[in-house]
Amino acid sequence: MSRDKVIQVGVIGAGRIGALHARHLATRVPGAAVVAIADINVAAAQAVADQWRIPVIAADYTELLAHPDIDAVAICSSTDTHARIIQEAAAAGKHIFCEKPIDFDLNKIDQALAAVDSAGVKLQIGFNRRFDANFRRVYELVHAGKMGTPHILRITSRDPAPPPLAYLKVSGGIFLDMTIHDFDMARYLMGSEAEEIYAAGGVMVDPQIGDVGDIDTAVITLRFASGAVGVIDNSRQAVYGYDQRVEVFGSAGMVTVANNTPDSHVYSNVDGVHTAKPLYFFLERYTDSFIAEMSAFIKSIRQDTMPPVTGQDGRVPVVMALAAQKSYQENRPVRLSEIT
Amino acid sequence: MSRDKVIQVGVIGAGRIGALHARHLATRVPGAAVVAIADINVAAAQAVADQWRIPVIAADYTELLAHPDIDAVAICSSTDTHARIIQEAAAAGKHIFCEKPIDFDLNKIDQALAAVDSAGVKLQIGFNRRFDANFRRVYELVHAGKMGTPHILRITSRDPAPPPLAYLKVSGGIFLDMTIHDFDMARYLMGSEAEEIYAAGGVMVDPQIGDVGDIDTAVITLRFASGAVGVIDNSRQAVYGYDQRVEVFGSAGMVTVANNTPDSHVYSNVDGVHTAKPLYFFLERYTDSFIAEMSAFIKSIRQDTMPPVTGQDGRVPVVMALAAQKSYQENRPVRLSEIT
Amino acid sequence: MSRDKVIQVGVIGAGRIGALHARHLATRVPGAAVVAIADINVAAAQAVADQWRIPVIAADYTELLAHPDIDAVAICSSTDTHARIIQEAAAAGKHIFCEKPIDFDLNKIDQALAAVDSAGVKLQIGFNRRFDANFRRVYELVHAGKMGTPHILRITSRDPAPPPLAYLKVSGGIFLDMTIHDFDMARYLMGSEAEEIYAAGGVMVDPQIGDVGDIDTAVITLRFASGAVGVIDNSRQAVYGYDQRVEVFGSAGMVTVANNTPDSHVYSNVDGVHTAKPLYFFLERYTDSFIAEMSAFIKSIRQDTMPPVTGQDGRVPVVMALAAQKSYQENRPVRLSEIT
Amino acid sequence: MSRDKVIQVGVIGAGRIGALHARHLATRVPGAAVVAIADINVAAAQAVADQWRIPVIAADYTELLAHPDIDAVAICSSTDTHARIIQEAAAAGKHIFCEKPIDFDLNKIDQALAAVDSAGVKLQIGFNRRFDANFRRVYELVHAGKMGTPHILRITSRDPAPPPLAYLKVSGGIFLDMTIHDFDMARYLMGSEAEEIYAAGGVMVDPQIGDVGDIDTAVITLRFASGAVGVIDNSRQAVYGYDQRVEVFGSAGMVTVANNTPDSHVYSNVDGVHTAKPLYFFLERYTDSFIAEMSAFIKSIRQDTMPPVTGQDGRVPVVMALAAQKSYQENRPVRLSEIT
Repeated sequence: MSRDKVIQVGVIGAGRIGALHARHLATRVPGAAVVAIADINVAAAQAVADQWRIPVIAADYTELLAHPDIDAVAICSSTDTHARIIQEAAAAGKHIFCEKPIDFDLNKIDQALAAVDSAGVKLQIGFNRRFDANFRRVYELVHAGKMGTPHILRITSRDPAPPPLAYLKVSGGIFLDMTIHDFDMARYLMGSEAEEIYAAGGVMVDPQIGDVGDIDTAVITLRFASGAVGVIDNSRQAVYGYDQRVEVFGSAGMVTVANNTPDSHVYSNVDGVHTAKPLYFFLERYTDSFIAEMSAFIKSIRQDTMPPVTGQDGRVPVVMALAAQKSYQENRPVRLSEIT
Repeated sequence: MSRDKVIQVGVIGAGRIGALHARHLATRVPGAAVVAIADINVAAAQAVADQWRIPVIAADYTELLAHPDIDAVAICSSTDTHARIIQEAAAAGKHIFCEKPIDFDLNKIDQALAAVDSAGVKLQIGFNRRFDANFRRVYELVHAGKMGTPHILRITSRDPAPPPLAYLKVSGGIFLDMTIHDFDMARYLMGSEAEEIYAAGGVMVDPQIGDVGDIDTAVITLRFASGAVGVIDNSRQAVYGYDQRVEVFGSAGMVTVANNTPDSHVYSNVDGVHTAKPLYFFLERYTDSFIAEMSAFIKSIRQDTMPPVTGQDGRVPVVMALAAQKSYQENRPVRLSEIT
Repeated sequence: MSRDKVIQVGVIGAGRIGALHARHLATRVPGAAVVAIADINVAAAQAVADQWRIPVIAADYTELLAHPDIDAVAICSSTDTHARIIQEAAAAGKHIFCEKPIDFDLNKIDQALAAVDSAGVKLQIGFNRRFDANFRRVYELVHAGKMGTPHILRITSRDPAPPPLAYLKVSGGIFLDMTIHDFDMARYLMGSEAEEIYAAGGVMVDPQIGDVGDIDTAVITLRFASGAVGVIDNSRQAVYGYDQRVEVFGSAGMVTVANNTPDSHVYSNVDGVHTAKPLYFFLERYTDSFIAEMSAFIKSIRQDTMPPVTGQDGRVPVVMALAAQKSYQENRPVRLSEIT
Repeated sequence: MSRDKVIQVGVIGAGRIGALHARHLATRVPGAAVVAIADINVAAAQAVADQWRIPVIAADYTELLAHPDIDAVAICSSTDTHARIIQEAAAAGKHIFCEKPIDFDLNKIDQALAAVDSAGVKLQIGFNRRFDANFRRVYELVHAGKMGTPHILRITSRDPAPPPLAYLKVSGGIFLDMTIHDFDMARYLMGSEAEEIYAAGGVMVDPQIGDVGDIDTAVITLRFASGAVGVIDNSRQAVYGYDQRVEVFGSAGMVTVANNTPDSHVYSNVDGVHTAKPLYFFLERYTDSFIAEMSAFIKSIRQDTMPPVTGQDGRVPVVMALAAQKSYQENRPVRLSEIT
């Protein structure tokens, strides 16, 4: 494919994340055009299409898969549809960007990945945080050897407020819905796979979250194949805003990253010294990383290179989440090899 | 004018800043479209036009002024042409965004502003830093009374490297070329006009800058009508990058803003603790403020409101720069009323 | 006892920590005088005595216990002697300051505490970090309700370099020697007892540490009776210096404390922005807290109040350390109730 | 003199600063003993003597000068007595530590310095900030060439609250009373003498300060012999506490130091992120530097070396303050050579 070709993308799903990717593809991603959007809620698709002058609107995403001019699809529909649409899109020869997680079921994931393999299309999973400037800098420093051998990884990942209960009921639970990003980050930064996971936590934020069978606070210990140890802490409610920090400590040094704020003001008065809260949530915090991940996807198509977040990168965090879930339920460390 | 109307903009000048505004108008500014670009260097205009699919290209900017579909122009040509083009654009009934400074000559500025007034078009001057999140936050806190009565203003404004000597020769000197932004910032933040200015400084970075009759380092004291005192320090070369800080101190508190960095990493090793340098220069540092100023200009047209940086806001910093120049030459405090 | 009385203290042990307490008692602790020092290494005792003009020097600490003018002893001898000396000092009617840990054996601890109880003397255990300005501030904010209900506790505690192997062989292992301070801090800050502990870790810094049966890196998860979860990470070697941070996160907010540095300089050059490393180790970092803990001990004697760190406060962290040890060995969460 | 000799010091003046030096000499300064204290207010002298068991108390300081066992005096009496006591102490063969300023009158200073010279005793002036860890670090980095050639110096020095009006009336004015410390700091850090000074400012904090003929806010520009430019800003009232910062910017980099705080806590809640205010005032902020300066004085006596802050170091800042005063009164830059 010519590197000058503009990649024609169809967006499947016109919800919050689909609308976001459509906007970026229309205005911020070099070499891409968004030519179609599909949603069973046609009004939602229409609204996005109107804003970015997207010519094709469909209630049924299969229209996009059948469209000869579409090179790639961005799957932004509900999680339970991801694996099936991946298979169908692969069969239709479309390159695929798919939001995380691929599925909660490893068999379905494996079928989807097999379909991608046999079709020879590209698949990139939406672990956008890898493209954030802070985390990328940590990655670069770790992989340049600046920490020496990594010994300890710490990830803090706390949302500003819990999602609606209706969402939580179908979310797969905190490990599959929220920690999964941190599991990906752990693999990305440490360059070593987790072998065993121990999860502690509970319902501390809202008893209704417990009522739907989930927890809202967790501390997860990871043992890596390298011997290193990691710990992730999660909360569904940090009242001061989205808290997204990591730290890698090793034989030669340590690197940490702080939260991003809307501005750098420091106000001093008789009461103390005051600065801005972190950016509120992922839409504010990760705008640039969403643009960068989509740009990387488009670039991998145009340059015919491996997408930077592969199907396997989509599968492993699901295994980790399932291990964490089992660990929490049984209150014991669980080896990833137990999860099949 | 309907608030839904898309404002058709013609960009005059396809150099670095013209290309930047064209890109923003094409991709990031709501309610605007860039429909024409003019430069005596037609190849430069062509290159920008190609990138953003701008239909009209002209060697002569008067073609844009004559174009009936163009609502507004962005004047990004060399400073010596600003005043004349403002007059002509006003006569043509176009709304005007003009890069700073309007001119080095107060008579020409006054003629230009008179032309704008009599034509009844809108004029906004490109003091983009007012639209930066940090400085805007300082403004908001000061104007919300959080400092009480402002007593002391401090502005640090240092470039990462001097411009080419060829540029310096026609730049008007450090006060008109560089400090002018800080003069605008001083007025913006303090809500009071400077009455007297004292400038010290010299050639410290590069003797060649002295050879062309300019200086490269300056410390400027401002006395405001309110009684407050301000100090600006400038250098043409901060080896660690673009240094853009302000501080307002008053009876009830103090606010400062720090430099922006590409990421928030903190790396600790045997040698110390290390963080990122400031963003390199204004293109990196002020991207968002360039977008915000142009969005504000477009919005003021669509909503028929006063532009947030007026012609008078363009004139006063020139007076301040001329006073600073005179102060430096005569080594004495100079009242703004001496400058006519 | 009169509040004006100067408490006459005998220091038992003239090693590093004994010399430190002798210096503080001689020069920095109000209302105290150091009147005797004992060490089987008489030359060491002599050296300390010479420096602070301590009149009584003994090879045998029992001379101090028999001395009628001595009100209190500071036990700074090796850990294996603590429990016995506490019992003897209590029998002699001396108030007791004892370095941590009391002992590695819970029975011996219980006997010592019983002796203290029946003698009615005061006993304070040397968990000095409670008296550090940073940690005390965290304590105050947590106990003032500023975090709401605490949900997550994070403690990072890393030494700049491992102790000598000879020391490690008799240290009791990382949990009893190093983490014990963090276990105390966890109880102090959270106001809730740990019920279950899970420890992961390994030998990452130096294989010789493994050869003597210890580990050098650990991540320990704590479940508190309140439902909260804590995590401690330890390393025997942080090449950038002593790393002592805590964070308490709760329903209403979060508080963190950073490391202390010798100065606050920030140096920016072409390579980046550089600041000072943390203070090197506990002698530099905790000078003020050592003075404050001893002042609090003396004050509790003079004012006849409960010492701020009780015998029970000395016992519980040992239970926690033994649980962590068992957890690490058996790779499972261990309830504190299993430790007897 | 033997390096093991304990220097016997007499303190002249038992006010706040005299009591402070007495305490330090009694408890914190190696190689020194405080053996006498004099104050016309004998009760004040008695109170200090009681606390530190100082054997000799005098209403008349000349008793100390006549005392054969006293090696050195610390002059902590009112400024108008400094020059005379220096002359008398020198004549009595005592080494002299004298609080700043020596005097407001250059002739008196010169007579005092001449007396010191001819007596061959040591004289150290109490510019304690040179001994502060932050400023010393700046000094070290600048003098190690880390800034390259210094171009710009910035000093912020703001008190938390104005002194009583009764004090202000005899203080000599803001430049001689407050800025004098900053003038010393400027010389210390830049390694170049100021040649010209321009002072702006006014009465902004409290009109009563104007009523006694003083100002409370100032911005002072310094031109150094090296060509560098400096700026000092002063306020008598920073409501957030003592504000003591410096910045040196040069051809190879920049160094800044921040304020010291009682602890490093960072508290995040729904309202923002909050940290501690600076330490309240000089007694809290400069405790360690007061100890270090006195230790350096004692050491210079014991080792017979030049004191680190000489009589000339005491004289020049007075010249600078007089130049600043004249500049403010005449609203023009004043050369130091004008002051005689």
